[in-house]
Amino acid sequence: MSLSELQHFVHAELLDGGGWNVDEIVTALRDIREQSLEGRQRLSNPPKLPSRKALQEIVEGLTAALFPNRLVSPDLAKGGVDYFVGHTLDVALRKLLLQLQRELLFSSKVETNLPAVRDRAAEIAVNFAQELPAIRVLLESDIEAAYQGDPAAQSVDEVLVCYPGIVANIHYRLAHVLFSQGARLIARMISEIAHSVTGIDIHPGASIGESFFIDHGTGVVIGETAIIGNRVRLYQAVTLGAKRFPTDENGNLIKGNARHPIVEDDVVVYAGATILGRVTIGRGSVIGGNVWLTRSVPPCSNISQAQVRHELFDGGAGI
Amino acid sequence: MSLSELQHFVHAELLDGGGWNVDEIVTALRDIREQSLEGRQRLSNPPKLPSRKALQEIVEGLTAALFPNRLVSPDLAKGGVDYFVGHTLDVALRKLLLQLQRELLFSSKVETNLPAVRDRAAEIAVNFAQELPAIRVLLESDIEAAYQGDPAAQSVDEVLVCYPGIVANIHYRLAHVLFSQGARLIARMISEIAHSVTGIDIHPGASIGESFFIDHGTGVVIGETAIIGNRVRLYQAVTLGAKRFPTDENGNLIKGNARHPIVEDDVVVYAGATILGRVTIGRGSVIGGNVWLTRSVPPCSNISQAQVRHELFDGGAGI
Amino acid sequence: MSLSELQHFVHAELLDGGGWNVDEIVTALRDIREQSLEGRQRLSNPPKLPSRKALQEIVEGLTAALFPNRLVSPDLAKGGVDYFVGHTLDVALRKLLLQLQRELLFSSKVETNLPAVRDRAAEIAVNFAQELPAIRVLLESDIEAAYQGDPAAQSVDEVLVCYPGIVANIHYRLAHVLFSQGARLIARMISEIAHSVTGIDIHPGASIGESFFIDHGTGVVIGETAIIGNRVRLYQAVTLGAKRFPTDENGNLIKGNARHPIVEDDVVVYAGATILGRVTIGRGSVIGGNVWLTRSVPPCSNISQAQVRHELFDGGAGI
Amino acid sequence: MSLSELQHFVHAELLDGGGWNVDEIVTALRDIREQSLEGRQRLSNPPKLPSRKALQEIVEGLTAALFPNRLVSPDLAKGGVDYFVGHTLDVALRKLLLQLQRELLFSSKVETNLPAVRDRAAEIAVNFAQELPAIRVLLESDIEAAYQGDPAAQSVDEVLVCYPGIVANIHYRLAHVLFSQGARLIARMISEIAHSVTGIDIHPGASIGESFFIDHGTGVVIGETAIIGNRVRLYQAVTLGAKRFPTDENGNLIKGNARHPIVEDDVVVYAGATILGRVTIGRGSVIGGNVWLTRSVPPCSNISQAQVRHELFDGGAGI
Amino acid sequence: MSLSELQHFVHAELLDGGGWNVDEIVTALRDIREQSLEGRQRLSNPPKLPSRKALQEIVEGLTAALFPNRLVSPDLAKGGVDYFVGHTLDVALRKLLLQLQRELLFSSKVETNLPAVRDRAAEIAVNFAQELPAIRVLLESDIEAAYQGDPAAQSVDEVLVCYPGIVANIHYRLAHVLFSQGARLIARMISEIAHSVTGIDIHPGASIGESFFIDHGTGVVIGETAIIGNRVRLYQAVTLGAKRFPTDENGNLIKGNARHPIVEDDVVVYAGATILGRVTIGRGSVIGGNVWLTRSVPPCSNISQAQVRHELFDGGAGI
Amino acid sequence: MSLSELQHFVHAELLDGGGWNVDEIVTALRDIREQSLEGRQRLSNPPKLPSRKALQEIVEGLTAALFPNRLVSPDLAKGGVDYFVGHTLDVALRKLLLQLQRELLFSSKVETNLPAVRDRAAEIAVNFAQELPAIRVLLESDIEAAYQGDPAAQSVDEVLVCYPGIVANIHYRLAHVLFSQGARLIARMISEIAHSVTGIDIHPGASIGESFFIDHGTGVVIGETAIIGNRVRLYQAVTLGAKRFPTDENGNLIKGNARHPIVEDDVVVYAGATILGRVTIGRGSVIGGNVWLTRSVPPCSNISQAQVRHELFDGGAGI
Repeated sequence: MSLSELQHFVHAELLDGGGWNVDEIVTALRDIREQSLEGRQRLSNPPKLPSRKALQEIVEGLTAALFPNRLVSPDLAKGGVDYFVGHTLDVALRKLLLQLQRELLFSSKVETNLPAVRDRAAEIAVNFAQELPAIRVLLESDIEAAYQGDPAAQSVDEVLVCYPGIVANIHYRLAHVLFSQGARLIARMISEIAHSVTGIDIHPGASIGESFFIDHGTGVVIGETAIIGNRVRLYQAVTLGAKRFPTDENGNLIKGNARHPIVEDDVVVYAGATILGRVTIGRGSVIGGNVWLTRSVPPCSNISQAQVRHELFDGGAGI
Repeated sequence: MSLSELQHFVHAELLDGGGWNVDEIVTALRDIREQSLEGRQRLSNPPKLPSRKALQEIVEGLTAALFPNRLVSPDLAKGGVDYFVGHTLDVALRKLLLQLQRELLFSSKVETNLPAVRDRAAEIAVNFAQELPAIRVLLESDIEAAYQGDPAAQSVDEVLVCYPGIVANIHYRLAHVLFSQGARLIARMISEIAHSVTGIDIHPGASIGESFFIDHGTGVVIGETAIIGNRVRLYQAVTLGAKRFPTDENGNLIKGNARHPIVEDDVVVYAGATILGRVTIGRGSVIGGNVWLTRSVPPCSNISQAQVRHELFDGGAGI
Repeated sequence: MSLSELQHFVHAELLDGGGWNVDEIVTALRDIREQSLEGRQRLSNPPKLPSRKALQEIVEGLTAALFPNRLVSPDLAKGGVDYFVGHTLDVALRKLLLQLQRELLFSSKVETNLPAVRDRAAEIAVNFAQELPAIRVLLESDIEAAYQGDPAAQSVDEVLVCYPGIVANIHYRLAHVLFSQGARLIARMISEIAHSVTGIDIHPGASIGESFFIDHGTGVVIGETAIIGNRVRLYQAVTLGAKRFPTDENGNLIKGNARHPIVEDDVVVYAGATILGRVTIGRGSVIGGNVWLTRSVPPCSNISQAQVRHELFDGGAGI
Repeated sequence: MSLSELQHFVHAELLDGGGWNVDEIVTALRDIREQSLEGRQRLSNPPKLPSRKALQEIVEGLTAALFPNRLVSPDLAKGGVDYFVGHTLDVALRKLLLQLQRELLFSSKVETNLPAVRDRAAEIAVNFAQELPAIRVLLESDIEAAYQGDPAAQSVDEVLVCYPGIVANIHYRLAHVLFSQGARLIARMISEIAHSVTGIDIHPGASIGESFFIDHGTGVVIGETAIIGNRVRLYQAVTLGAKRFPTDENGNLIKGNARHPIVEDDVVVYAGATILGRVTIGRGSVIGGNVWLTRSVPPCSNISQAQVRHELFDGGAGI
Repeated sequence: MSLSELQHFVHAELLDGGGWNVDEIVTALRDIREQSLEGRQRLSNPPKLPSRKALQEIVEGLTAALFPNRLVSPDLAKGGVDYFVGHTLDVALRKLLLQLQRELLFSSKVETNLPAVRDRAAEIAVNFAQELPAIRVLLESDIEAAYQGDPAAQSVDEVLVCYPGIVANIHYRLAHVLFSQGARLIARMISEIAHSVTGIDIHPGASIGESFFIDHGTGVVIGETAIIGNRVRLYQAVTLGAKRFPTDENGNLIKGNARHPIVEDDVVVYAGATILGRVTIGRGSVIGGNVWLTRSVPPCSNISQAQVRHELFDGGAGI
Repeated sequence: MSLSELQHFVHAELLDGGGWNVDEIVTALRDIREQSLEGRQRLSNPPKLPSRKALQEIVEGLTAALFPNRLVSPDLAKGGVDYFVGHTLDVALRKLLLQLQRELLFSSKVETNLPAVRDRAAEIAVNFAQELPAIRVLLESDIEAAYQGDPAAQSVDEVLVCYPGIVANIHYRLAHVLFSQGARLIARMISEIAHSVTGIDIHPGASIGESFFIDHGTGVVIGETAIIGNRVRLYQAVTLGAKRFPTDENGNLIKGNARHPIVEDDVVVYAGATILGRVTIGRGSVIGGNVWLTRSVPPCSNISQAQVRHELFDGGAGI
């Protein structure tokens, strides 16, 4: 390659496109899209899905309204707090109303009765709004439980700003009300926002009592039909899961049946424990770390793992 | 301290710097930097590393082009979709081209042949672009596998917008093609973006078949030389790792040897199971939760953990 | 519903509010807020908490100053690096000074001596600034440990830009100095930023030696009073936790006592291992994956888990 | 004031609100709002006005689609230009459709026929879209006129990126089509965006031929019913205004009558000239700087100002 | 230059700095800074100036609070308006308080009495806040004057969103109150924000009555001591300026004396007119376009410019 | 239209595109683009134009470096100022280098010698950087001139933050050096940024001495070959323009000849004055407001406008 060829080459490279054939890829992707499962399932003009970004803003707004001065906007004057709360609520609820309309339009899938969708969305939003004070009371009990339960916690405010378990609870308690009102997709999306941020995966269908505390939390999974009493405490990597998935005569999964544990009041489950199936952990029990449990235990049980061997080492778990 | 002293003090505090000696710290840091391993390894003018932020934008753009109307930009008219896909692809691929040039310049480390770098970067980008339709087909199979495999999933779209396993798969499948083309650093950085968001850590060197589904996912680790067949399902906290790291005669790690499991078609691995070393899990096997496995098992095996003891409790796992 | 009724309805829906009663919810939330634990604990005009967003910016700034050209701003000219480092440090330290004042005002809770708060905040900031070169040296050793310890690592720079363990170490080493200086809340908040991004939860009170390497990392938990020596390596999901929480005669948790493990030099702990209580893991020991350990082990021990049973499968761990 | 009083004071000031009574001001403002002209003119639930910010984005999008590679997004590959243009147009037109609906709802003011509003908005948007190629041709002639008419212009591209007159023309030519279609408010808002940026105020109702060039432009005003031929050139601070505003028998302004000048082909009007009323400036005329003209002039006229006096100075015009 | 030289050259250029000597320029600039007028005038630690960006946000916030639903945030529900107004006011006033403290600290220039500064800033902010309803009433009269005075105005809302004269009035009326309270620098900065956006330059010291309307507006200048009555109308490029600047015996400008025109009620001044000095334009007068006026005129005067010559053309005003 | 038809209609409208035919418009625009003047003038792969947004950032950065603590970033500690200046300069100059390369590639138009372009761009950037201290000295004199010349100016800092004339001077003095170095397009673009913000249009080719002050400034135009001495003061709407544009034998404009006024030291030109052609305004002269001047005047002249008539009014200048 001569000098002038090189110059030409470098110049061209700087100015040219990349060499890929956009038309070809666009065409291939369109073909795949049209033949895909989602393509076949849907109407020709698909309704819009709820927006994850909008839901993030909604949860941030609601959190700020529930805990003004603490979590989001620490520069409010005392006389301005109610104006902040009212305005923030109003904006968040209006955004939620739009997302609810999207979910209802999306999930109806048949010829839609638009006014009915709007009525239903408004009804859900109003019901949800009315639950906000009750949610705040439950979160208050969760924060106090964390403060009482962790020797490292120095103040209630530290719990509120530092503990991922509280972040997960805020998302769960908001999502649970929406799930109960039928906004299942939005509820799941809110749960996944918390999952991504905290590593804690609580299905919004689960039922959880007051004063609930998850410490550290990474890897916790709580299934859709789990029922958790009051004053329960979980540590990181605890699973409250399903044991098996029954199928109908056609081999399809049966949906919605009760398949996750019932954890009664005042139970503690230590890190890494796995509890599977519709079993009941009796009130006041303590489940030890890394325990694998697929049967019910009576109240006040203490369950712990078998002892480890102390022997010549033959393998690691590195990667 | 008198009143006027206090006034002076407060005023000064408001206006002064903080009291640290910036010059001193800057000098100390420069000295350390120059003597550091990275300082010694590199040329005096280090090439630029690929940018994590740019890679995030690239993956977002490619995802939007693969799933228009679903994941990113739900306000497109039907007649506008192909324009959106084409434009989004073009922008993302041009950004990728620049990052590929950076990686190639960076990893060459010797006197660089610049035109060769540009040729090679363009070649990788073109090859990668041509794989996008095939990636879309694989992701289609993953989404359908999730929909079929989870009783909680209500629709294919819900899977797409809610499931962290799908986020991890999108990143993995894009990164794997780049890894295969030699862009190892960019591939790793893309994997780590997914790891941070989902808690799922799939090395881009792993080989994974169609209809792959990871549920919940937090804590999953899949190693560089793992081979996974079709229709495999994993739950949270599953490790497909290496058993030991052999070293050469000088005590240095031997790199690149096959050291992670082979998981054949139609295997299910439940939560917390750890499978280590170049073992083979035979087709159709089921590996139970929390199982620790360092040897091969034949097809259709069912492996489960030893039972827990039920005894007096003597310890927790809290912190 | 007639046509004109429908038109009216749709129009009204477009223009109206959502139907919720903002006044009522605002009033209810104010009542709850005033009766809450935080409401009772605090002065009528609560001081501002440190801002998580500001702390994120501070850590980003400090990281950029510690690793210019590598992590944040790769377009600096050689002659411009020191200016970048000096300016970035100055801005980050001034922001930190403000957050330190907030924490001190917040945690004092009694009639505050404002000049003393400012003096103390400035003192902490100056002490912290002086530690930055030492922190850089420790991080250098961590990066080299990762590069030496992982067969997949291709270069020191890859370690720096890809490994979540390094992100966790940077946050930990900065937070630990602040914790030692008494800025406990800010230190915790910085730890939680890393926890959210990496899934690695290191309490800033822990004491950790040089050349520390966490691979993969999701689910790692290291408690407040843990002591870790030099050249220690941990894999994902390792817990260094407390065994039990002693209470005083009134049933309140006793705070601050040594309750987490001591891990001596050159120890490796494989994935999923749980070590609880003030036990000592002797120098050079290897703790196998998924091991549950609540007693001390002598130097050079090899600890591994009991074998799994191979039997008919009867349950999963899915959800 | 004692030392401790001062400390208390400063502390309180730092933490308190500002002392104003928000409730009182909010109440007063609400009362004024409800009694205001706009309050009385409107329905209880006012429709939304078009958004200035949205219109800015729309004009930016349309400009980018008209001049890809030149004005907005210079990093497109050749193969990607049409995708960029198509996508940018689609997004801008959809945003415009929404703003058109807003204007129509807003300006109807009586019980709205919603479907009719939507039909009409769509009709305007489609008509507008079809005019875009013609607008592009006119702008091409304007750019060439500037290049030919200014000795300082070095290239056509310099004209496009530097000349405020071109910015004003782009806004005018887009706004004029919208004005002609009945979207008068949106058209005016677009004109005012250009006015703010360039100091050139062209009413979108004016009619302007091809090859129109305004140099410098600050202070140019062109009225609603002005008619400007082809190849006309204006300099800064030229006014084409109305001489008087006739009123009806009730003293109300008569609206819409022809009250601004007709400027025929090939006319040049130099800086600061003021031409008022429905007069005709004949083809090929030259109007000198600072001239004040309220009557028609025949083709090829040359009009200039009276000479200044040269005398003892007695006053300035400073402020 | 050989091929390899070229390659090297291009590579180096890509990676090197620009060749300038930053150290040298930094040193030179520091020297100049320290010897400059501002350097000599100031204390070693200069107080902070008010921030233009903060003032822009403050004016935006106040405008939104004065005209909710119209100018800024058109998506409020009816029940949410007062919350929006209250919150927006609270935030804007708190930001203003901080800027007022900055101005007072800055302009004091001697050893500052900090508590006094804070008291005074709070006093100004409270006084300003109390004037907001009165400002709203004046702006109402301005908007109605524009609507009545311009045949092109279709609605009051169009005036509010389109007319730069209204933007200038909002800024002026807010700035005037601040100027009267002694916050002269902030007032000037707010005026200049409007000047930049509209081309209308009203000194905040001027006194202007109700129902004030400036049409088009580019180039209007109104001086510090001008007094303008009720129902006055100005067109573009009108100057109300000073005739001369008297100096004292040392040749220094005498500041603060009345040096700008008094314009009585119901006066109209057409485009380009220049009125200089402390003259009085009597009630109900009409000043024609481009008139130059340096003496008082009695009520109901009609002043117009000398006629232009119609003659052979000998010069333009192009550039 | 029946009820269900209406529902269907509304639903479809919500979900459909807008009805325009994007393909058709894209095709039409491509055809026009390819046949346009710019299309014909250019190579098939046009080089990139400099970016206006980048130039805005560059000027902001340079301004911040020239006036740290005053204009941009008022929170610097004293020890941090030089680091801020050095870093800000480095970043701004590197951005400028890239824009210079773009202009040189763009304006070359023939087969480009890429290394020569890079050399030349670096040379311009280095020369420009070396001029920054001299620019700072000139701006210092401008600021002092404004402070001395305006009775309303309270401090040097007020001048710096409030006066649009200073903004225009900063842009002009930076642009003038770039223009002199051959970066004519970038220089023009910088001038237009100032023009848009201030209404002051100074061609970067003009030559302007020290202590230059423009008050108010809207509408000022200064042509490419104007020469302005020291201590000159201009008011708003002053034009220093060309009288006529001579053409060559082919009727094409002759470019680059001296065609704008020479204004000697200590001249004052009041508002609205227009001075045209290569005339000389002798040292110490005063040109009155609205004066129209097309001939030279000797030193110390006082020029004022003819008197206005006081007569019956017959027309306005409204629009």
